[in-house]
Amino acid sequence: MRSFERKNIKAMVGYTSGEQPEDESVIKLNTNENPYPPPQSVADVLAQIDVASLRRYPSPTARQFREVAAELHHVKLENIIATNGGDELLRLLLTTFVEVGAPIGIADPSYSLYPVLAAIHDSPVRRVPLTSDWELADDFAKQMNAFGVKMTFVVNPHAPSGKLIPVKQLAEIAQELDGILVVDEAYVDFIDPDQHYSAIELLNRFDNVVILRTLSKGYSLAGLRFGYGMGSINLIEPMLGKTKDSYNMDAISQQLGMAALQDQVAAKLTWQAVRDERSRMAQEFNKLGLVSLPSQANFLLVEIPHECAGGAEVLYQTFKNEKILVRFFNEERLKNKLRITVGTPQENSALLRVLKIAINK
Amino acid sequence: MRSFERKNIKAMVGYTSGEQPEDESVIKLNTNENPYPPPQSVADVLAQIDVASLRRYPSPTARQFREVAAELHHVKLENIIATNGGDELLRLLLTTFVEVGAPIGIADPSYSLYPVLAAIHDSPVRRVPLTSDWELADDFAKQMNAFGVKMTFVVNPHAPSGKLIPVKQLAEIAQELDGILVVDEAYVDFIDPDQHYSAIELLNRFDNVVILRTLSKGYSLAGLRFGYGMGSINLIEPMLGKTKDSYNMDAISQQLGMAALQDQVAAKLTWQAVRDERSRMAQEFNKLGLVSLPSQANFLLVEIPHECAGGAEVLYQTFKNEKILVRFFNEERLKNKLRITVGTPQENSALLRVLKIAINK
Repeated sequence: MRSFERKNIKAMVGYTSGEQPEDESVIKLNTNENPYPPPQSVADVLAQIDVASLRRYPSPTARQFREVAAELHHVKLENIIATNGGDELLRLLLTTFVEVGAPIGIADPSYSLYPVLAAIHDSPVRRVPLTSDWELADDFAKQMNAFGVKMTFVVNPHAPSGKLIPVKQLAEIAQELDGILVVDEAYVDFIDPDQHYSAIELLNRFDNVVILRTLSKGYSLAGLRFGYGMGSINLIEPMLGKTKDSYNMDAISQQLGMAALQDQVAAKLTWQAVRDERSRMAQEFNKLGLVSLPSQANFLLVEIPHECAGGAEVLYQTFKNEKILVRFFNEERLKNKLRITVGTPQENSALLRVLKIAINK
Repeated sequence: MRSFERKNIKAMVGYTSGEQPEDESVIKLNTNENPYPPPQSVADVLAQIDVASLRRYPSPTARQFREVAAELHHVKLENIIATNGGDELLRLLLTTFVEVGAPIGIADPSYSLYPVLAAIHDSPVRRVPLTSDWELADDFAKQMNAFGVKMTFVVNPHAPSGKLIPVKQLAEIAQELDGILVVDEAYVDFIDPDQHYSAIELLNRFDNVVILRTLSKGYSLAGLRFGYGMGSINLIEPMLGKTKDSYNMDAISQQLGMAALQDQVAAKLTWQAVRDERSRMAQEFNKLGLVSLPSQANFLLVEIPHECAGGAEVLYQTFKNEKILVRFFNEERLKNKLRITVGTPQENSALLRVLKIAINK
């Protein structure tokens, strides 16, 4: 059989997602899902969907969802695009604004999907290492400009460390960057309210900022594939009117996504429960002599010294044997750590029981 | 505000989809939806979906759906990819197999999305005109090769004419083409069974053929966004493992799509009802002195002479004033015609009533 792949596609390796076992009894703390189900309000909307309505095409621009999102975030309809997961938004940003072959910029380490999307786009990736404190370098924007980067991705809170970048620093970066700053806020809902974090104000000040949101984590809808982007009209309109698939959001998702966003009370209960358990788990790890980075996301990055339970990769396997999945990244700065999603109190306690046995405490 | 768009994106015009009015009382014969709702079996699966299951990520490869599709079409699991509408498959084919800037080939006229996808990919479009009988030119493949085209799109039955290309001719084209042949079978389900049409046999003989299917028309699920592609593993695997979004199909769609494909009995009843009405409408148009092309799809392309009801564009507006939508294409060979989706007997009769008044018969 002949190969017809483009050169860059043939040369690349696809994205490796976290394991998605079909066994429902597995305690799944590896892909940062919300441990609580979507609320009754979403179930009610699902129950009322008339299958006959699926005969017709959906709204091509998910207008009603965008109206709800615009009201929630105090932006305008034209500042919002709904996407098939945050992934679609990331892809559309490259497709629309990055000339093929032009470099993109990321902090290192970061979300492992960015380099894969760059490879598909045939674009090189310029990496600026995080400081030893997992912070962005002071001259981050300057370095990106020197690289000739036209689009820079920053995930905030950072993955996989959970570290929060202050809005002030994001503003300085947006100001200085020659290109577009994408602030990937997949985990934004789990930030402590007393941090008073909101990057949306940046959209009024800068014409080169896009904020990514997803319903996968904060709204317990990873299975629905629903994300959205916010930015000024020069950034949103070309994606909405030209580069997205004609009907990118299906009719059911549009309705459930809207219901989820409208039920802020229910969502916020899950966020606070996750924060409470995040604090407890950090303390428990600490009691066991394990260091975890202060996290504003729904996961903790925990350092596992080699002398402890055989190190991170061995401990990952120990957990897996006990039907608990966590995430191990076999790369520099991460291979001595595990990223552990914050689950329900019961799930977290189960993990702690296995951990204590593994490290003989 | 600065513009950050890529040059080709800035220069292009987005796809214009058919009107999707929110008014449910409109008789919608403009975007080729199936006039009948999805069957009870699909409604039953929808009713049984547990919203709590949406908390977790879906199967990244829609494995269970693909198993059902593989069994139905007598191909293997690895020969199938599920996509977010047929549109996603078309996009993935360009992303994966067409070097940026390399030309693609289409018959002219054809589905108006192809040139839009080419513009996004920064690829020129090489057009080979259909014959006066709306057939592919005898030297179609030779012309494409001479153009240096590496991917050729053929929609079969053809849109907007409804004309069916015989499998034998497709085989000759696949044999001769230097690049990939994409057979877009969006309307395949409405072909008369006595035509004994099946292009799937081509997949065993050629390593350069991809067949596109969709649940939008034949399975009454345009609102669900569900398509799939079939081809040899050298074509399917790179899209499945590298270039599609990591979780491109949501959990609900995967289950409903599978249920729809499994209920062949229900789907076939709608196909036959559409064929029956297609025959009746062609006869009725003929009685009124209007020529429609013999169609194997769920629409008829009807010639509207200028002296008849003011011509196609005026008649389109006359229908619209009566809350009946049909499709008018303002382009060469089409601007004296209307494409009219075959609806229910009641919808079709309503259209005929308006038509008779408009042409004073």
